Amino acid sequence: MLEVSGTPKPGNVDRERDLGDLRFEHFMAGAVGSGRGLRRAERGATVGVAFERAVAGMSRQSGGNTQFGCLLLLTPLVSAAADGDLTPEGVSRVVERTTVEDAAAFYRAFEHVDVAVADPPPDADALDVRRGAEAEPALRSRELSLLDVMELSARPQNAAESAVEGAGEPPDEARVPDGNAIEWTTGFDRTFEAAEAIRNDDGPVTDRAARAFLRILADRPDTLVAASQGAETARGVTRRAAAIGEDLEAAAELAAEFHAEGINPGTTADLTAAALFVALERGLQV
Amino acid sequence: MLEVSGTPKPGNVDRERDLGDLRFEHFMAGAVGSGRGLRRAERGATVGVAFERAVAGMSRQSGGNTQFGCLLLLTPLVSAAADGDLTPEGVSRVVERTTVEDAAAFYRAFEHVDVAVADPPPDADALDVRRGAEAEPALRSRELSLLDVMELSARPQNAAESAVEGAGEPPDEARVPDGNAIEWTTGFDRTFEAAEAIRNDDGPVTDRAARAFLRILADRPDTLVAASQGAETARGVTRRAAAIGEDLEAAAELAAEFHAEGINPGTTADLTAAALFVALERGLQV
Repeated sequence: MLEVSGTPKPGNVDRERDLGDLRFEHFMAGAVGSGRGLRRAERGATVGVAFERAVAGMSRQSGGNTQFGCLLLLTPLVSAAADGDLTPEGVSRVVERTTVEDAAAFYRAFEHVDVAVADPPPDADALDVRRGAEAEPALRSRELSLLDVMELSARPQNAAESAVEGAGEPPDEARVPDGNAIEWTTGFDRTFEAAEAIRNDDGPVTDRAARAFLRILADRPDTLVAASQGAETARGVTRRAAAIGEDLEAAAELAAEFHAEGINPGTTADLTAAALFVALERGLQV
Repeated sequence: MLEVSGTPKPGNVDRERDLGDLRFEHFMAGAVGSGRGLRRAERGATVGVAFERAVAGMSRQSGGNTQFGCLLLLTPLVSAAADGDLTPEGVSRVVERTTVEDAAAFYRAFEHVDVAVADPPPDADALDVRRGAEAEPALRSRELSLLDVMELSARPQNAAESAVEGAGEPPDEARVPDGNAIEWTTGFDRTFEAAEAIRNDDGPVTDRAARAFLRILADRPDTLVAASQGAETARGVTRRAAAIGEDLEAAAELAAEFHAEGINPGTTADLTAAALFVALERGLQV
């Protein structure tokens, strides 16, 4: 909720903008709805079960997908916090504990809501996340944990492509790897870095959130922009964000431009939300 | 959260306006913080205990009082919903069950946060809510339930004044009775009426919330405006709201005026939030 309240967040829903029929209140309802699943993670549920329940709760509003990627980051972070070790090492231990059951729950979560993802190549779609529960036999036969799935998605190709045995062709440079999966496989490196920047920033939390968003956007191409509008557009967005720095007035102009161009850096918002959670757990006051 | 997201709500925090250091994110954090107390009401806790816990949780942000009055309405409504009878009769049964323990918890809740209330007369302040837990002996000696306290506040005088035995003078016409206390003593009449209007309205829930706010504001003087700026100002606010009806564009202009004049109709927002809860429980979709 702090993330969606951060304004301006160019291309995303914030206090000033809705995105057509995807409105601010859908994010409120999505966040509240996800609470029960996240509280299960707090009480020790596995990441897969907690995530799938959080997504189910999030989906009890009519706007569509509001926080799927955000919850994919938050769930292991909540588990790590509940373990009393919200650090890169602590969350790495959480994701290393995941099993094929967590992977199956992750795939089932796609059945609750339509999530924008890149197309897999037509000849290697057994692990396309849009298969939902139908992917379970493939997951089990390959004994893939949820961390394994994330490692496949973190490569410059997507999971389905990478899962093909012997598909050792060099990564397609036109592709943008999944930013959330990269967090899973790197101890949530960018999340913790953004959290510290938020804590060291000044002013209202929502302004800090907006500046965190701008920094993350300027850092690497956004996965959702790449999936929906192509890697070159995503790289252009990164350059345009880098050009304005942390200037919130310039960001308001960029928000108008991105809105007109239909550019929606959703993965950057996911990282911002995850960073806000870490910052709050480490003492950030609202 | 839907209430504070309703925009424009003239004089209140909404998506377009903060009120100085009382900002939108404080309402987000206050609402989330109150959740644990409200869930206790859902699981059968007494109204006093659930309310006091909800206020304690709400107060874990730095903006000050965000939803005290709102929670005073929501807590018995949640209890009634948990009883499976969210009707005027059902919530009346809930408030009739309250005891002196609930009253004592209500007074303790004032110790968590500064709440704007009208001054009691200097000679009759034993039940001034600002006494907090110190009022407990007076509550016990008079055997006042929380409903009794609300009945005193619902009169045109305030509770402290009314509690003086034999103080049978005619009500001071300059005074505005407590709008939330009136709900407690009338089966939440205005809340249920506003909930039905929200359900029968069209469009995004936040626009419906804004129109509900305008209707409630035009209906009767706002208690918080009366407490902070006097009954005549409160009556003027009512007239100005009545003049614009449900026109959200005109409401945006009124919001600018009220902001400049420091007019903050907080009790009207409380009623709007309560009505949204009832509407959601009765099937309103976000």
